[in-house]
Amino acid sequence: MQVASQPGADGQLGGPQRADHEPGTGSSAVAVDAMGGDHAPEQIVAGAVLAAREYHARLVLTGRPGLIRPLLAKHGAVGEIRLVAAEDALAMDEGAFASWSRPRSSIAVACQLVRRGHAAAVMSAGSTGAIVATALQRLRPLPGIARPALAVALPTTPTPTLLLDAGAISDPKPEMLVQFAQLGVAYAQTAFGISAPRVGLLTIGAEPGKGNKLAARAAKLLAEEPPHGGTPISFAGNVEGGDLLTGQVDVVVTDGFTGNVALKTLEGTARYAARQLREVVGATRAARLGAVLQRRGLRELAARLDAETYGGAALLGLEATVVIAHGAVQAKGAAAACKLAAELIEGRITDKIRERMGSVRAGHFLRRT
Amino acid sequence: MQVASQPGADGQLGGPQRADHEPGTGSSAVAVDAMGGDHAPEQIVAGAVLAAREYHARLVLTGRPGLIRPLLAKHGAVGEIRLVAAEDALAMDEGAFASWSRPRSSIAVACQLVRRGHAAAVMSAGSTGAIVATALQRLRPLPGIARPALAVALPTTPTPTLLLDAGAISDPKPEMLVQFAQLGVAYAQTAFGISAPRVGLLTIGAEPGKGNKLAARAAKLLAEEPPHGGTPISFAGNVEGGDLLTGQVDVVVTDGFTGNVALKTLEGTARYAARQLREVVGATRAARLGAVLQRRGLRELAARLDAETYGGAALLGLEATVVIAHGAVQAKGAAAACKLAAELIEGRITDKIRERMGSVRAGHFLRRT
Repeated sequence: MQVASQPGADGQLGGPQRADHEPGTGSSAVAVDAMGGDHAPEQIVAGAVLAAREYHARLVLTGRPGLIRPLLAKHGAVGEIRLVAAEDALAMDEGAFASWSRPRSSIAVACQLVRRGHAAAVMSAGSTGAIVATALQRLRPLPGIARPALAVALPTTPTPTLLLDAGAISDPKPEMLVQFAQLGVAYAQTAFGISAPRVGLLTIGAEPGKGNKLAARAAKLLAEEPPHGGTPISFAGNVEGGDLLTGQVDVVVTDGFTGNVALKTLEGTARYAARQLREVVGATRAARLGAVLQRRGLRELAARLDAETYGGAALLGLEATVVIAHGAVQAKGAAAACKLAAELIEGRITDKIRERMGSVRAGHFLRRT
Repeated sequence: MQVASQPGADGQLGGPQRADHEPGTGSSAVAVDAMGGDHAPEQIVAGAVLAAREYHARLVLTGRPGLIRPLLAKHGAVGEIRLVAAEDALAMDEGAFASWSRPRSSIAVACQLVRRGHAAAVMSAGSTGAIVATALQRLRPLPGIARPALAVALPTTPTPTLLLDAGAISDPKPEMLVQFAQLGVAYAQTAFGISAPRVGLLTIGAEPGKGNKLAARAAKLLAEEPPHGGTPISFAGNVEGGDLLTGQVDVVVTDGFTGNVALKTLEGTARYAARQLREVVGATRAARLGAVLQRRGLRELAARLDAETYGGAALLGLEATVVIAHGAVQAKGAAAACKLAAELIEGRITDKIRERMGSVRAGHFLRRT
């Protein structure tokens, strides 16, 4: 458990300033954006308390002290979880553009905690666009990673399938898709315990070379030895949109445009199916009686078809992993996201990514094209 | 009803040769590929007989006379539907590449019937890749259409939403997406009776300019006056993957790569939902009893979630519309596809596309880039 530190009136960190601190070697705390989410800060603070008590996660909350402290008091957790002041907060309908000029937002302060060595991962349930934009602006990419990718865990069994990039960069270079593969493999190993994740390339048609120019070039690069002595990828070849939920591969790489369209299509179709199902089981008196007999199964199915219960998203490839919980998350979901972030730190995901990328030195490689 | 004509031993057309015949002014028959489909030729011939008798569709069958004639005889339809010999046939697992060197395949002969003025549309339940490749090779594009597009009708209510391009061209130019919009509007008017179809651009994020470079440029072009005095498009702006099944717009345009990934993702998610539903309603004795009470509703839902019942696909922008029925189609589905093709002819869809494209002359415009 963290000992609480009272932030100064100007919202500066209570702890010592370590501006040049090398990330990954300092604090192993998760910086939790207490203000992001439809039910923030109440449910986020409740989730943080749960995560700290049940999973012994080391957390730092960022947000408005006037709002957060009474919530901590309600849970009897003042002094149990550290709080760093952030007087500004991004609303759920504020996107990437708004975030640029908001250095005191709770998510920006969470990123600053990482830069200063007071945290090693970030958790937020705020707007994905704003989180990604803030993290890209405020956190350094890992060596060899030109652009971070947004990874989403799809609900396959027994382990989730990771789709990335789900929207961080719309027009990537083919080389970046190989980097996405390395990021995805490191994440699947750390978060899902898959020892040798299989990687598929999202394209159209199973034969090699099929698809658009980007996919054709990426397929060649994925099949080659990675540059700079990086760890080879277990490339399983092309996959199609219909394979996303079959668990055929563990990691699916694609550009952020296609990945986002696929993800939104998947969520939209699941919503469509759930809506249709509700109509069927409520259509007649007999059908409603039938639904009573299936009550538990139908409830579970509705949850599985509900995009909000998917494994959440993570921005990978920066000096700290940013876990993005669904905006509608309640205390339990927020706690699970805090736990995931803590596990990624414990599993040394950024070190794993560095190792997989080989001997690339910072500055050696194309960055932020 | 057509009077049957016996094909010559070499498979040449029984009718007069009109090589320079202007399409759209000659025969209004549908050339039906009797050999394409999982249940071909039996179910395709049965469907053709049904369409000819119930809907008075004018049809010409292409395929192996030794197989087709006994089937026509079984239905007492010899002399009722014309048959043109095609001794070759593409198997369902043969894709685009195989089709190039197969001029005597049933689908190639169906396209030749169009070129010679003996048919004004084509219907096939064969492999989509092979059909598209054959049609691109053998049919001329309409003036102003650089590349034809594959349109798929998604099961929205009260009218379907048309998604195009669903895979004909992977790396289109932004200008082509405007052409796809014109094709989609003409199709939605003719096939679904929508007087002023609303067009959306598939991208990521609702704000104008969001998405990749292609989408950003296409959004600008779609909002402008169309070139060559073409008919203005009712452009409703950006849509996302989650909007494909909400009926928010009538026509969704995108590049063939993204469109195909979205379509396959949609179909895969619907299959996933249907599989999950089957598990729930069969999980326990009580659940199975419940399912009995919902029998009709569940059956209808399973059908709605079954990609095979979607409205089928159409290749648009060539001198003849090519209606592509699902490979698994039975007689009833084949008849519906024949009827649709006949209705597109009657609705003068190619004339409508010409009108919408304005004063573009053949050769005036970039073709087959």
